[in-house]
Amino acid sequence: MSSNVVSISERRNADAATNPIKTLQTLVSDDMGLVNELILDRMQSPVALIPELAGHLISSGGKRLRPMLTLASAQLLGYQGKRHIGLATAVEFIHTATLLHDDVVDESNMRRGKKTANLIWGNQPTVLVGDFLFSRAFELMVESDSLRVLKILSSTSAIITEGEVLQLTTANDLTTPEEKYLEVITAKTAVLFAAACEVAGVVSEQGRKVEEALDAYGKYLGIAFQLVDDALDYSAKQATLGKEIGDDFREGKVTLPVILAYRRGTESERKFWKRTVERRRQEDGDLEEAIQIMTQHGTLNATVERARHYGAMAKDALAIFGDSPAKTALSDIVDFCIERAY
Amino acid sequence: MSSNVVSISERRNADAATNPIKTLQTLVSDDMGLVNELILDRMQSPVALIPELAGHLISSGGKRLRPMLTLASAQLLGYQGKRHIGLATAVEFIHTATLLHDDVVDESNMRRGKKTANLIWGNQPTVLVGDFLFSRAFELMVESDSLRVLKILSSTSAIITEGEVLQLTTANDLTTPEEKYLEVITAKTAVLFAAACEVAGVVSEQGRKVEEALDAYGKYLGIAFQLVDDALDYSAKQATLGKEIGDDFREGKVTLPVILAYRRGTESERKFWKRTVERRRQEDGDLEEAIQIMTQHGTLNATVERARHYGAMAKDALAIFGDSPAKTALSDIVDFCIERAY
Repeated sequence: MSSNVVSISERRNADAATNPIKTLQTLVSDDMGLVNELILDRMQSPVALIPELAGHLISSGGKRLRPMLTLASAQLLGYQGKRHIGLATAVEFIHTATLLHDDVVDESNMRRGKKTANLIWGNQPTVLVGDFLFSRAFELMVESDSLRVLKILSSTSAIITEGEVLQLTTANDLTTPEEKYLEVITAKTAVLFAAACEVAGVVSEQGRKVEEALDAYGKYLGIAFQLVDDALDYSAKQATLGKEIGDDFREGKVTLPVILAYRRGTESERKFWKRTVERRRQEDGDLEEAIQIMTQHGTLNATVERARHYGAMAKDALAIFGDSPAKTALSDIVDFCIERAY
Repeated sequence: MSSNVVSISERRNADAATNPIKTLQTLVSDDMGLVNELILDRMQSPVALIPELAGHLISSGGKRLRPMLTLASAQLLGYQGKRHIGLATAVEFIHTATLLHDDVVDESNMRRGKKTANLIWGNQPTVLVGDFLFSRAFELMVESDSLRVLKILSSTSAIITEGEVLQLTTANDLTTPEEKYLEVITAKTAVLFAAACEVAGVVSEQGRKVEEALDAYGKYLGIAFQLVDDALDYSAKQATLGKEIGDDFREGKVTLPVILAYRRGTESERKFWKRTVERRRQEDGDLEEAIQIMTQHGTLNATVERARHYGAMAKDALAIFGDSPAKTALSDIVDFCIERAY
């Protein structure tokens, strides 16, 4: 989601207090200031190309949703220490490193409305600066002095890469079962959301129940977030926000809206999907036809309904916590992630 | 260095006991059996492409010099625990991940006499499986339960990537100062050798002096190793071992033999280097001419002499340890790394 989504939402909600992203940002703004300082500090290197390339993506107006989740989770638990700052930064670095490598892997040209690093500097330094940020993330995690945090985040990053390889190998299989698709988005997106929340529980030292609740909240939020993202890629709503649509279609990515459309489709529609997604032989007008078929079979709505289900589970996972502004913000952000589909 | 180097050396030394690599292998063979098991175990994944791609490189006959250094260092210190097994495996995974990403970055076609993973499977999974092995390395490090080990190895991997970006940015600058070249090879090669040795000191808990000595030994050995590698790339010796020569030349890599040749060269020779290495406009016979110019100015010998200097420092760093088969093996391996130049 680009920063445009935020700014347009802001205009829509003249009263900033009713915009959940704004509420969350305000709630954690002091801590986020420290995270932003640490991000800038730790992406430095005597090798000038490193901060230049990393800064291109880092300063490109991502919302920093993942570190916000760490900070808000810490606040939910009344955590008084400082270790969540480094961990939120580590989470953002893991995410940034993943984006850099994704853009090389997907041969992407645009991200967040800007040219991608691989397009500007080439694949070589983009792969290496991704590695650099991964290493810096691990350094920050080590500084947390918690072996449990390290276990969670190191296994998270192994699962993320496993998910991405799995996605590559199932990339244009139109008969991918929904369960396998869920496995992919859980691995490539939801486990980092989950870890972002859970590590705040670990440094707060309030027991396994608390950690498990945060882990579940983050995981279900992450699944809902990715489902909506996958629907938005075919949505006119996305187009009005100034983001290009159809990236997944052009790359032949088999996401849930496509899986359902293939399953519910006629023989001639299946031939269409085979040509455009499986063999990636696309012509002018194909994206429009894809959207038309999806709309007819209601697969975009069905995808958002699935997201709503996981969103409900995310909110229920917060039930063990007493009422607080942080709890409200974490709950509202779930709705926000789903409502952006409309 | 390919396995060919070892097997030919073996033939040269009919008595295996006089071959330092063989001696080292015999010394640590029980532990290396455990490391090999752990390597196979931890490169597994339900995503079949991961062990397939990782196994292609891992089983391709690398000598596993770096994990051997961890195991021999542990033996040198009389370490009785088991934590060095996981750390030796982590070191090999970091090295393997680096090789996978290097081959993508350098667009290499051959490694250890086999087609590279990027040539067989493409860049996409090769980048991701590299990330996977990095993550697995960190998981293994976390299992060591030592925050100092984690500090050393996470900062090592940040330095390695910094070194590689630095090498990219200085890649075809013929006026690279020797000091900058040393900085690059220290970062991209020697710090991992150093960490491989030092972590054995940490888990052995014998104090900072011991860790510092192992760190110095590994670092100087690594520098010597890389200097000889850079000389071998232009050496008829290498050619007789069945390895292709001239890879660095073709990639326009400015290594010490080239830096010295450019510095000591005539005006017309400098034009030759500018055309072939800086602009990479190469013709048939250029490699032969490069070798001829280097031989005339003695820059290959000078590079090996530099290696000899660092090798002497490596051996002297072992002075604080009492005599033992492990100390002899670690000392002899320094000579072996240099003698392979002849």
